[in-house]
Amino acid sequence: MIQAAGLYLGRAGSKIACMSLINFADQITDLMKRKKSRVIVGLDPAMEHAPLSLQGGEIATLGLGTREISHGRQWAMREFCERIIEATADITVGYKVQVAYFERFGSAGLHILERLLLEHEEKLFILDGKRGDIGATSEAYADAYFHDYSDEDKSPLLCDAVTLNGYLGRDALEPFFKHLAKDKGAFVLAKTSNPSSGDLQDLKIGEDPVYVHMARLVHEWGQDFVGACGYSALGLVVGATYPEAARAVREVAPKSLILVPGIGVQGGKPKDAQAFCGADGLGAVFNFSRSIIYAHKFGPFADEHDDEDFANAARVAAEYYRASLNDVLGEP
Amino acid sequence: MIQAAGLYLGRAGSKIACMSLINFADQITDLMKRKKSRVIVGLDPAMEHAPLSLQGGEIATLGLGTREISHGRQWAMREFCERIIEATADITVGYKVQVAYFERFGSAGLHILERLLLEHEEKLFILDGKRGDIGATSEAYADAYFHDYSDEDKSPLLCDAVTLNGYLGRDALEPFFKHLAKDKGAFVLAKTSNPSSGDLQDLKIGEDPVYVHMARLVHEWGQDFVGACGYSALGLVVGATYPEAARAVREVAPKSLILVPGIGVQGGKPKDAQAFCGADGLGAVFNFSRSIIYAHKFGPFADEHDDEDFANAARVAAEYYRASLNDVLGEP
Repeated sequence: MIQAAGLYLGRAGSKIACMSLINFADQITDLMKRKKSRVIVGLDPAMEHAPLSLQGGEIATLGLGTREISHGRQWAMREFCERIIEATADITVGYKVQVAYFERFGSAGLHILERLLLEHEEKLFILDGKRGDIGATSEAYADAYFHDYSDEDKSPLLCDAVTLNGYLGRDALEPFFKHLAKDKGAFVLAKTSNPSSGDLQDLKIGEDPVYVHMARLVHEWGQDFVGACGYSALGLVVGATYPEAARAVREVAPKSLILVPGIGVQGGKPKDAQAFCGADGLGAVFNFSRSIIYAHKFGPFADEHDDEDFANAARVAAEYYRASLNDVLGEP
Repeated sequence: MIQAAGLYLGRAGSKIACMSLINFADQITDLMKRKKSRVIVGLDPAMEHAPLSLQGGEIATLGLGTREISHGRQWAMREFCERIIEATADITVGYKVQVAYFERFGSAGLHILERLLLEHEEKLFILDGKRGDIGATSEAYADAYFHDYSDEDKSPLLCDAVTLNGYLGRDALEPFFKHLAKDKGAFVLAKTSNPSSGDLQDLKIGEDPVYVHMARLVHEWGQDFVGACGYSALGLVVGATYPEAARAVREVAPKSLILVPGIGVQGGKPKDAQAFCGADGLGAVFNFSRSIIYAHKFGPFADEHDDEDFANAARVAAEYYRASLNDVLGEP
């Protein structure tokens, strides 16, 4: 993916020289244009949905936590992710890895994630951990994902962007800011895609719900990280299941890059995609987890593909969602 | 710590038989009474504050993230934690481990944490990760910390309780509830100890700030997990730096167990401790991280102890805070 003429240099590129660091919002916008895609693939390897050939014998119990993870299981998780990546890389913007699905296997699971990030360091990876803690602790999390001084001393989970929870306020996010000023990105939860997100997020503070206040704060904090594309490397998460929330968020946060989970299995619709974008049809990327990686099992393509054909099913689904979004929004 | 006559059976005890599972609030209350202590020791191994003997050579650079962690570094982190535990176990309720300080070393760091939890499974451990995600993902996190079906199939990061972020609402916490109905605990962030916690948490929804609404929700959800002690295994986090917040929280959440970080280096005072407790002087435990584990460097005992004497300094500080709290609140 490293192209001398192209804009995106990614994690591999950032090592070349400090002066060549490119704002994350510009990187992702460039990728959207080159791939003609707004699709992010969510790698949530819940292996109980994986094809049987990757669940043989002991792998069948992979859904249960275990202190030990056999080489067979490690191989299966890696193989599953690798084949999804291989099948979708040319038509998607990048990948969102959900840390929980690796953390549930402890250090062995995290090791699989490290290998995955390292072997695909030329691709764009968003680490979805929704972290957020007091300053000193957030500093340690930022160390885990964003340091890349040299080959000898880099973060174990080096990635391009993370998701963060802003409930603790500005000083919990600040340790990430110095990296956003370089080439990294972060998406702070505003309105999440789950059914009970309204328990707290919809409560009204004055005229506006909590999530609009969160969006306003993030927009303000993100002013320092706005790229040439007009969007900030400090972005927001707004669930596709709540397009009316996206309209309210866009009003107070016109420059925020928005990561949109929830189209497909969770119930969000491509036809509502405009609400999440800026006036230029950019500024939003759409994450598909189960709808792509388990397309052999869930959704409109399940009937056409048997389990062993999961990688092809993922490609067909990714292409379908790419086209659906482009139909509504135009090619990026 | 397993005593046939005692109440606390902990992680080791929970394996004995399902019928012997003891509510987490009852476990921790029993420990408070037996240890005559409300002190939790926060294990945040930021090794740059550790004594030089644990930083020799390459270990000095431990503050920077690194993909590889040498055996020397792993040894130093474990040795540091082990010596703190050894010096404080008899006068404290248990330990809170901050996942970030392990995660910054990736899988190798998490492996150290796994070893620590395994080797001390008879002690009470709270895993401080402030996790919170949509249902399917929270299920994977719960798998990581709370499954303990048998010796062959248990969670890699098996612990007694976790901290959670409730920004996503009830369905993000629900995957943990089935474990709270057994012998596990969870503390949901209400008002955090950091300076900018008010950015979102203090905003007013009607008459009450966000953190009071969060506390009210958690109190309601926690009704199913109230133990014989009168407190619920679904608790709250309220920072010691905001005692007036604690009074407001206690009013709407009288049965919530409260985990209180922030006395000492962060600025909270033992004299304000009553605000966090119930009328019986129970219902709250107080976490000390830097104020105990780096007592050789920060706080009133730094002058009396040189770096190599860190474990003794930790014991002196733990004893001091135990007595200070008991002076204000009476022995638990």
